[in-house]
Amino acid sequence: MKSKRKSWVNWLLFLFTLVLVFVLGLLASSVMERRAEAVFVNKPLVKLSDYEPRNEEWGKNFPREFESYYQTADTSFKTLYNGNTVIDMLEVDPRLVVLWAGYGFAKDYNQGRGHFYAIEDIHATLRTGAPKGPDDGPMPNTCWTCKGPDVPRLMNEIGIAEFYNGQWASHGPEIVNAIGCADCHEPNTLDLRITRPALIEAYESIGKDITKATHQEMRSLVCAQCHVEYYFNKKVPVEGVPYLTYPWKEGTTAEGMLKYYDEIGFSDWTHSLSKAPMLKAQHPGYEVFMTGIHFERGVACADCHMPYHSEGGQKFTNHHLTSPLQHIASSCQVCHRESEATLTQNVYDRQRKVIEIRDKAEIQIVRAHVEAKAAWDAGATDEEMKDILYLIRAAQWYWDYAAASHGGSFHSPLEISRVIGKSIDHAQEARVSLARLLASYGQMTEIPYPDITTKAKAHAFIGFPVEKMQNDKNEFLITVVPEWLQEAAAREATYTAPVQ
Amino acid sequence: MKSKRKSWVNWLLFLFTLVLVFVLGLLASSVMERRAEAVFVNKPLVKLSDYEPRNEEWGKNFPREFESYYQTADTSFKTLYNGNTVIDMLEVDPRLVVLWAGYGFAKDYNQGRGHFYAIEDIHATLRTGAPKGPDDGPMPNTCWTCKGPDVPRLMNEIGIAEFYNGQWASHGPEIVNAIGCADCHEPNTLDLRITRPALIEAYESIGKDITKATHQEMRSLVCAQCHVEYYFNKKVPVEGVPYLTYPWKEGTTAEGMLKYYDEIGFSDWTHSLSKAPMLKAQHPGYEVFMTGIHFERGVACADCHMPYHSEGGQKFTNHHLTSPLQHIASSCQVCHRESEATLTQNVYDRQRKVIEIRDKAEIQIVRAHVEAKAAWDAGATDEEMKDILYLIRAAQWYWDYAAASHGGSFHSPLEISRVIGKSIDHAQEARVSLARLLASYGQMTEIPYPDITTKAKAHAFIGFPVEKMQNDKNEFLITVVPEWLQEAAAREATYTAPVQ
Repeated sequence: MKSKRKSWVNWLLFLFTLVLVFVLGLLASSVMERRAEAVFVNKPLVKLSDYEPRNEEWGKNFPREFESYYQTADTSFKTLYNGNTVIDMLEVDPRLVVLWAGYGFAKDYNQGRGHFYAIEDIHATLRTGAPKGPDDGPMPNTCWTCKGPDVPRLMNEIGIAEFYNGQWASHGPEIVNAIGCADCHEPNTLDLRITRPALIEAYESIGKDITKATHQEMRSLVCAQCHVEYYFNKKVPVEGVPYLTYPWKEGTTAEGMLKYYDEIGFSDWTHSLSKAPMLKAQHPGYEVFMTGIHFERGVACADCHMPYHSEGGQKFTNHHLTSPLQHIASSCQVCHRESEATLTQNVYDRQRKVIEIRDKAEIQIVRAHVEAKAAWDAGATDEEMKDILYLIRAAQWYWDYAAASHGGSFHSPLEISRVIGKSIDHAQEARVSLARLLASYGQMTEIPYPDITTKAKAHAFIGFPVEKMQNDKNEFLITVVPEWLQEAAAREATYTAPVQ
Repeated sequence: MKSKRKSWVNWLLFLFTLVLVFVLGLLASSVMERRAEAVFVNKPLVKLSDYEPRNEEWGKNFPREFESYYQTADTSFKTLYNGNTVIDMLEVDPRLVVLWAGYGFAKDYNQGRGHFYAIEDIHATLRTGAPKGPDDGPMPNTCWTCKGPDVPRLMNEIGIAEFYNGQWASHGPEIVNAIGCADCHEPNTLDLRITRPALIEAYESIGKDITKATHQEMRSLVCAQCHVEYYFNKKVPVEGVPYLTYPWKEGTTAEGMLKYYDEIGFSDWTHSLSKAPMLKAQHPGYEVFMTGIHFERGVACADCHMPYHSEGGQKFTNHHLTSPLQHIASSCQVCHRESEATLTQNVYDRQRKVIEIRDKAEIQIVRAHVEAKAAWDAGATDEEMKDILYLIRAAQWYWDYAAASHGGSFHSPLEISRVIGKSIDHAQEARVSLARLLASYGQMTEIPYPDITTKAKAHAFIGFPVEKMQNDKNEFLITVVPEWLQEAAAREATYTAPVQ
């Protein structure tokens, strides 16, 4: 009896082992299948040339990255202002019109909509005017530099300074693909690469070699090709060519860059009211990010703006570049254990506090411009105005450095508010001096704050013919732009992209 | 043979089990020994009365907490200024003398040295003057409120309003034990308790019940008994008695508290230069802390300032209240994985940025006071000065809220810099108006910035007889204070503290 029971138990163990091994086999098969899928997916379907500008061609080889990139077309997350998905910042904050009076940004300034719209939006903005021919219009070709992968292609074909040379309309038929794959990637290895010479040259100017950057650094530096402060140097390296240059030689802080501009005597424009020699901060996002705690802790732009996703066994970088608040679970919550609601509130709290004092700075600088105009009108001399105009220049630079840096109030809230504090302080010095100067010309009472409660009123105040410009722009959009696109399509049709 | 081997194996197993059980016994014994030690250590040696003010008596029952508390006598970590361990803030920053002209803080203001010195330092400061008798001197008894555990004892004996009533010298022989055990603890359970009525009443004023506070909240609230903004209400609840009150009814932000003071028409003093109705921010540490990220994440004061330590198997709270930078390993690094050097640098960076714009605010407000005096001297009227004086009041309040809040630039750097931004903005409005007003009285040129590069020069500028005051104080310290201490010692000798 005992021996019989024993052999029965042994048989049971044997059968159980058989079942277990079978299930293990199923599991191994499933794992192999997913590996196979991975190999299949990563196999390139088309041969991409070194400067292939068409994102759709890249998409054939890298469908997941491409599909996520295409989501930058979605702007539904943006706060709607008056029901528009295009947020007109001059309508939201008409003070900007006065602050930028005499400069392109006073004409038209919308909140950025995402990489997908880069070409469409540069065609549409009033800042690029309504050129009728290749040598017409207010802007140089340098303005194309950040707009898409046709830029490195064309620079490679004709040369860097040659690319920057000439009027903006002359490259119209060349630059038609929006910011995308070839701006940051090498086509075969997908290695990150710097395609904009200005960043490489900026590194050289501070004695650094960008080819020595680590992969983690590159995950921010590809963004720093565009999300930085820069200016057009019309003297160096080529006389007469607006060469895109970063003002980094004296450091990347607001003070360092102002010092640089002051030393070379540079100004972007002369303010039409105050006649101050102004600077326009572009979007010193990377510089401000470098002063914040996330950068200090070794976080890269891509860690939050392009977090890893997984789909069908594939781990890939999400190329839907947008606010990390759109995907908190894969961005913030990788490190921070708080709830989505809490983290979102933390960001909004920072923004609210920064905006409060940013608005104070704007009001004071608007007043300073208006009072400076009154001083000129009263008969003030260049000598009397010189120091005042410098204070206005500095005040507005500090304000614009803070205001124009995308996400600055989150990336580095304390640095941003420190710089806004300096802005208010400089505006104050200017206004106290102006009050004294105006009094010396008999102007004892306050110069009234202008009625600039809407964009239209602000445009009227600075004397800007917005209607005529918009009509010209509309004409340009239905006549010139289609020609550009047609010419580009014909050119691209000659590109070879053989299936491998 | 087979059966013999089997029995040998069984014996081996049996022996092994014996050894294992023996080792387990040893372990259990060790654990019990440590428990026994804990029980032994926690056994109270003396019976403490409810309001026992002598920290040394408490120390007999709670030696570890007491020994760590005694380390607050160590001030060696403080930045030495001119070789002194007492840091004379008026020497470090002589602008303070002008900002507080006409008020006690302009006489003398040292950096706090730690709880251990509370009594010694209030005797020594020029602010308390040199009273010759119980009804003499510039300050009321309310000034004792935060100085030590004799305060709740005395309040219990004579009543709250009765405690606040009368001149500061009258309680001199009563309040002799420095801030310590009975200020925050119930003597038998060591439960945290609120001993200062002002906090309880402040909670009531905002419709909250402090007895409902959680233990974690209490670990901040015991600190909020003193590290807060407050004022002396001479009208409510008892006419003529300077009743210590928190201005929390309109909120605990800088704006909320200013609104409260404005609505009740309160000012601490009239500025001796500008004649502005001034507010002196005390030390709104808790209010500022509440606006920062550590509070938002549920951290209590004690988590960083009194981290847990372990000694001889005893886990206890370190009562060496000081900067958490003194014990980063047990404070910051409990949550933050960065190195001590990195974390220290992060704190210093925040301080540096805040101090930069704080200094700008100070310079502008000093100028505003000086210019306001010039306007009065030129013949300005009350009506002309009214709005200007309010702007100066608000500018200095915002500045002082930021500057007087201990650790504010770390506890809530963005809130602090936001408030400093508002300070500069208000100072600016005042100065622009002053420039116009001065011009209308014929004063067209800039009022020079005073030479206040040292404390002595600043005192000379505001006309302060520092030498006479110091002589009187020295006399007071060698004549009156020893009498107080003698009287207190005689009284304390009558206390019974029987060994249990």
